[in-house]
Amino acid sequence: MAKNIALLGSTGSIGRQTLEVIENLGVSYRIVALAAGSNVELLEQQVRRFRPEMAVLNDPAAAARLERSLKGLHCRVEAGPGGVVKAARWPSADLVVSALVGFSGFIPTLEALQAGKRVALANKEALVVGGELLARRGLLNPDQILPIDSEHSAIRQSLGGASISQVQRIWLTASGGPFRGWTEDQLLRVTPAEALAHPNWRMGPKITVDSATLMNKGFEVIEACWLFGLPLDQIKVVIHPQSIVHSAVEFVDGSVIAQMGPPDMRLPIQYALCYPERVDNPWPRLNLFDLNLSFEEPDRARFPSLELAFRAKKAGGTMAACLNAANEVAVEHFLKGLLSFTDIPRLIENVMNAHTVMEKPEVEDLEKADLWARRSAVEQIARLTERS
Amino acid sequence: MAKNIALLGSTGSIGRQTLEVIENLGVSYRIVALAAGSNVELLEQQVRRFRPEMAVLNDPAAAARLERSLKGLHCRVEAGPGGVVKAARWPSADLVVSALVGFSGFIPTLEALQAGKRVALANKEALVVGGELLARRGLLNPDQILPIDSEHSAIRQSLGGASISQVQRIWLTASGGPFRGWTEDQLLRVTPAEALAHPNWRMGPKITVDSATLMNKGFEVIEACWLFGLPLDQIKVVIHPQSIVHSAVEFVDGSVIAQMGPPDMRLPIQYALCYPERVDNPWPRLNLFDLNLSFEEPDRARFPSLELAFRAKKAGGTMAACLNAANEVAVEHFLKGLLSFTDIPRLIENVMNAHTVMEKPEVEDLEKADLWARRSAVEQIARLTERS
Repeated sequence: MAKNIALLGSTGSIGRQTLEVIENLGVSYRIVALAAGSNVELLEQQVRRFRPEMAVLNDPAAAARLERSLKGLHCRVEAGPGGVVKAARWPSADLVVSALVGFSGFIPTLEALQAGKRVALANKEALVVGGELLARRGLLNPDQILPIDSEHSAIRQSLGGASISQVQRIWLTASGGPFRGWTEDQLLRVTPAEALAHPNWRMGPKITVDSATLMNKGFEVIEACWLFGLPLDQIKVVIHPQSIVHSAVEFVDGSVIAQMGPPDMRLPIQYALCYPERVDNPWPRLNLFDLNLSFEEPDRARFPSLELAFRAKKAGGTMAACLNAANEVAVEHFLKGLLSFTDIPRLIENVMNAHTVMEKPEVEDLEKADLWARRSAVEQIARLTERS
Repeated sequence: MAKNIALLGSTGSIGRQTLEVIENLGVSYRIVALAAGSNVELLEQQVRRFRPEMAVLNDPAAAARLERSLKGLHCRVEAGPGGVVKAARWPSADLVVSALVGFSGFIPTLEALQAGKRVALANKEALVVGGELLARRGLLNPDQILPIDSEHSAIRQSLGGASISQVQRIWLTASGGPFRGWTEDQLLRVTPAEALAHPNWRMGPKITVDSATLMNKGFEVIEACWLFGLPLDQIKVVIHPQSIVHSAVEFVDGSVIAQMGPPDMRLPIQYALCYPERVDNPWPRLNLFDLNLSFEEPDRARFPSLELAFRAKKAGGTMAACLNAANEVAVEHFLKGLLSFTDIPRLIENVMNAHTVMEKPEVEDLEKADLWARRSAVEQIARLTERS
């Protein structure tokens, strides 16, 4: 079955890998729209290669440059958040890959869902921040949303079409990041370079740090709750350092179905693009001979971010928006050397403690909470910096 | 949904565990027929507890004793192979659990399938010996046959309704038995008691020895070929000493779906009885925390039985009947101390070498091949014994 795809976030890590997958899938998968932030050079290359009907850059000046360099190519160029939304609702697209990074990816995702597109979802904020809103609007139909995360893709594949009422719990696996087993004292001195050296996955810097703090796993727990309609207490995080079992579903009868594969994002991307088909590909396979898989309980005291995510989900309303925004600011400052690794969860907790939850938030309320939390986080960091 | 069940082989290991499962499932699962070999006392107890409409013992003298002891209980008693077939076709039964041990379980299984019953299949010989015949008669519909073996149940569950054309290969797991890693010399001196001490599973003696030689795994490869309609080269045996991953399916896109659970036969039995439902139960659960799973390639030189099974499947026709019969005789003699452990595969190979394959065998041809192989095996053993 031919598919016309709008790819939002084409110049990022997931975006580039999505194009690699599409190239491998061949002619029946066609790119009709590409959207990115400000990377003119790469988007121009992508347009020349994939010949979409339209291309967007969020940054207007960059969009203007792109338009000039694409002159005569019959590719409509759009600019700004409005342009990204146009790509998300692009009439000829039947599948939208939502791979924008950050909360700004939420509105285009929402628009794509409301336009009835099938969405392959890599943007975490759409569920972490906007999950409650999407659920309220009835936009979390499993036939319409396909997760691109390796964990949620694994859960989806392990369910194999079974009803969620047959599920006892979900075992969400986590590599544990590069600092598994480190002492409090060691964690205090973690450098950005150390945090960016993920043992198993190649990913963008923000999510790599989130993996090291386990906040990424906390986000995934929230995402899983919304995606699969399960309460928090039916989701267990288990450390699995080899990143081969990407997650598992335990059914009410005690049977556990797990999905395994090499740690390669192209696999969940391809699964989401091709669903319900499965298509051959030339990438490395899992060799079960010589495989050793270990599992252990996460150290919640050493990695408090996980607990913060559980707390945010329980609080509901705008609290997850606050969690997400405070985390973004904290990670940004950590990467610039302005905040220590162990201060990341401390900062987020302070911001959450100061937040007044608004229930049943609309988009504007989430935006307000996001902004409030960012300001609050920056103020907290200023105070921390003064002290030291 | 209420189910009426005929249980063939009720006094054996699988039969007794099936009754335990049914007891736990409660009133909607009703036993309507019980069949066993010669164990009057246990069958009488089972009849008094489960109140079937009929009960059969294969041994006529035992059946006569049963009839006397059940006087006044409104339970019809039948005797002999004809009685077992009556149970297999019992009108009020919609599900037949085929748990008779040995080739004699094949005909009742065939009859149940031909009568349109759904069959929960634990009798290995039905597929090992009779698979080709069942395939030829179009009786291997996945909606009608549900495997009770933990491995085939795992494959079935891992498939999750996917089409077999999406499957790249099946990873059939094997514990490796108690003698994994033993030297040639150690294997030569294996005693029956050692062979009966399986590290993970509690099973009958015959199948426990078959696990130690890996012949059981060879049988399972043949069964998997027939059950799932896959050629031999799409099935890989992988040693997994912990017996937690019960098997896995690798799809064409590289995704591997595995089924895990405690080594407890009640789980695949319940899955087969309840399919497509899954029902809660009070048995021990898998705890993913503190789990360590290892996998390795089987030592084909040290355990030649695996190879013999592959060879029998390739030869087709009556060769698998010959393999099965020779193995039964060899194991019987090993358990009596009349044959060494390493002579088991040697004996089977000799019998197979002497066998003339008949293609497209009917039931009588399989019976003839079975009888021929048994005689040939006994003669071989006599010759071996003379020599020593």
